[in-house]
Amino acid sequence: MEKPTKKGTGLSPVSERRAVWMEGSFLCMIDQRLLPHRIRLLRLKNYSECSMAIREMAVRGAGTIGVTAGFAMAQAALTASESEFWEDLGRAAQEIRAARPTAKNLFYAVDRVLAAAKDGSGVAQARGRAVAEAQAIYDDDVRMTEGIARAGSPLIPKEKGVLTHCNAGWLAYPGCGSALGPIFRAHEEGRPLFVYATETRPRSQGAKLTSWELHQAGVPHLLIPDTAAGSMMRQGKIGLVIVGADRIAANGDTANKIGTYSLSVLARAHEIPFYVAAPSPTFDPDCPSGDQIPIEEREEEEVLFVTGLSSDGQEKRVRIAAEGVRAGNPAFDVTPAELITGFLTECGVVAPTSAAIAGFLKTARPLRKNLVESR
Amino acid sequence: MEKPTKKGTGLSPVSERRAVWMEGSFLCMIDQRLLPHRIRLLRLKNYSECSMAIREMAVRGAGTIGVTAGFAMAQAALTASESEFWEDLGRAAQEIRAARPTAKNLFYAVDRVLAAAKDGSGVAQARGRAVAEAQAIYDDDVRMTEGIARAGSPLIPKEKGVLTHCNAGWLAYPGCGSALGPIFRAHEEGRPLFVYATETRPRSQGAKLTSWELHQAGVPHLLIPDTAAGSMMRQGKIGLVIVGADRIAANGDTANKIGTYSLSVLARAHEIPFYVAAPSPTFDPDCPSGDQIPIEEREEEEVLFVTGLSSDGQEKRVRIAAEGVRAGNPAFDVTPAELITGFLTECGVVAPTSAAIAGFLKTARPLRKNLVESR
Repeated sequence: MEKPTKKGTGLSPVSERRAVWMEGSFLCMIDQRLLPHRIRLLRLKNYSECSMAIREMAVRGAGTIGVTAGFAMAQAALTASESEFWEDLGRAAQEIRAARPTAKNLFYAVDRVLAAAKDGSGVAQARGRAVAEAQAIYDDDVRMTEGIARAGSPLIPKEKGVLTHCNAGWLAYPGCGSALGPIFRAHEEGRPLFVYATETRPRSQGAKLTSWELHQAGVPHLLIPDTAAGSMMRQGKIGLVIVGADRIAANGDTANKIGTYSLSVLARAHEIPFYVAAPSPTFDPDCPSGDQIPIEEREEEEVLFVTGLSSDGQEKRVRIAAEGVRAGNPAFDVTPAELITGFLTECGVVAPTSAAIAGFLKTARPLRKNLVESR
Repeated sequence: MEKPTKKGTGLSPVSERRAVWMEGSFLCMIDQRLLPHRIRLLRLKNYSECSMAIREMAVRGAGTIGVTAGFAMAQAALTASESEFWEDLGRAAQEIRAARPTAKNLFYAVDRVLAAAKDGSGVAQARGRAVAEAQAIYDDDVRMTEGIARAGSPLIPKEKGVLTHCNAGWLAYPGCGSALGPIFRAHEEGRPLFVYATETRPRSQGAKLTSWELHQAGVPHLLIPDTAAGSMMRQGKIGLVIVGADRIAANGDTANKIGTYSLSVLARAHEIPFYVAAPSPTFDPDCPSGDQIPIEEREEEEVLFVTGLSSDGQEKRVRIAAEGVRAGNPAFDVTPAELITGFLTECGVVAPTSAAIAGFLKTARPLRKNLVESR
């Protein structure tokens, strides 16, 4: 799955801020595991390669996982046999769903492409509708992150910094990203701002991806160790926290990258507004509370080792802890709704209550459906 | 300064849990920068080499910095010229004091050796007293950490884990360590316990040193990313937090490794007792509150890069963040006294109030002084 894109395609995914896109029946993506040191493009020919790319985190971030899953379903529809089309597509859906357990967008995208395919009459139409729907998921995501950017940018303080965790930029969510959307927009509007990006161990997406996105965009920022966030808050340097989300339960409890919960407790203790930026596909109305969100426990090697660029220009994995030491590696945690100031969504700011979320989802669903049906 | 100890000296500092010791006029130490992957011993011939070892963190941890500073002063006394003895010794004190700004033990040890030397009549006696005093600081530290272990071990919960941050074991404090003392003692008493060690970025002393110490001692433990501490608390896995300290102000405000403050806020939010383990030399009665404790800002390379063991068996430094990204690296933070449940000291548990601390220091000082005078 690791063939680089041929030269001469004219693609510049970084300047266009595109983490994944279709080229014919191939799904192309930036291999995020090698960022920021190397921009390697992957061209994946089938849904199994896409599932593996999700599982092994060549792509990550709620929205990007979702669109990858949607495109993978489109690939599955294109390659499924004529005679066993629905069985093949069902098997693909199962494999893609199993790639990672926490991000709601993954399940949302699989279901949406499956439903679109089933709306067609006959296999040929089903294939066409699956491909169109996968692209529609992407296009919807772009529009939705623009809405988030509009909702969030007025909240960005002039005098103090914005703290963000992990990576919720354009690599993580198609368009301008979820948590970084308001930041990019405020910067593009020429407003003064300063961003603190936490490293986000164990995979260091803050250090590797967020600070790279901010640096590329010329947004003034400082990378800080996860350990420094509380102290920065106490010193009055942080005026706002914005994070992304992997899944939001019906009551507003939010699963996001490990460390988000700690930041929400710290923000509350320092009376700093704490916003979760996420469009409707990240909300899971069928999940009553955070207790029901499955939390992925990843391999301990991610904690015991760190990967980075060696002085010889090679990507190297180095062992931090002694041989024999065991590590815990929960990939996500759950922030209870009561610690969240509000959700930044495509429909504006939504309060962290069951009623407000239900109302938002009632408004948001038909908007998306209209988009699809108008094509 | 990096000559390894000659073979055949019969030293086994790891099994004896000795981080630094004198051999004639040489100060020997385990180079903690290479742990846990390699045990390299340094033999430092003069106080300038010792100052550099402190500055570059070949030795670290409040107590170990202190005894190194004390031994460095003894070396200075041994090598100072007969004619300009006091000028030479004063210059040495100045250089050693400048090595690192936060740890109180450093200043305590320099002052104590200087005072002991001045008590002597004539240079020869001053040299002898300086050497004896440096060793006395070490011996006092060992006794004091035994007191801390006795004070803290009854607090260790059976059903839940103990969380500790950074490294406050025997590498950091002569004897059994400060924060790890109670843990080692409870384990040696055969009591069931479980320790969560936070990685402690940017230098990862939890991953490199604490989990190694615990693994060596057979203490059941799990290394976790700094980001996972809050989530572990919310899940009810943590029943106690014990950390070390670099300097404690007269009102109980405590400077310790960056991230300690966040853990204290999280512990309070989850109603988990939060203890600071530190003997009297870490207390600074001349410093009214945490606002007056100087906080060292270290170079950003510590955040941008990680050092570990490559698969070829070599120590490698790898770059995490993109070129051009800037990082903040405050080495310490201040935990206000009101978030501290108590101090574990050589005189038992001390309440985090100005009065209790003043009372404790009144009791502790003469105890130490008697120890010196009785020699």
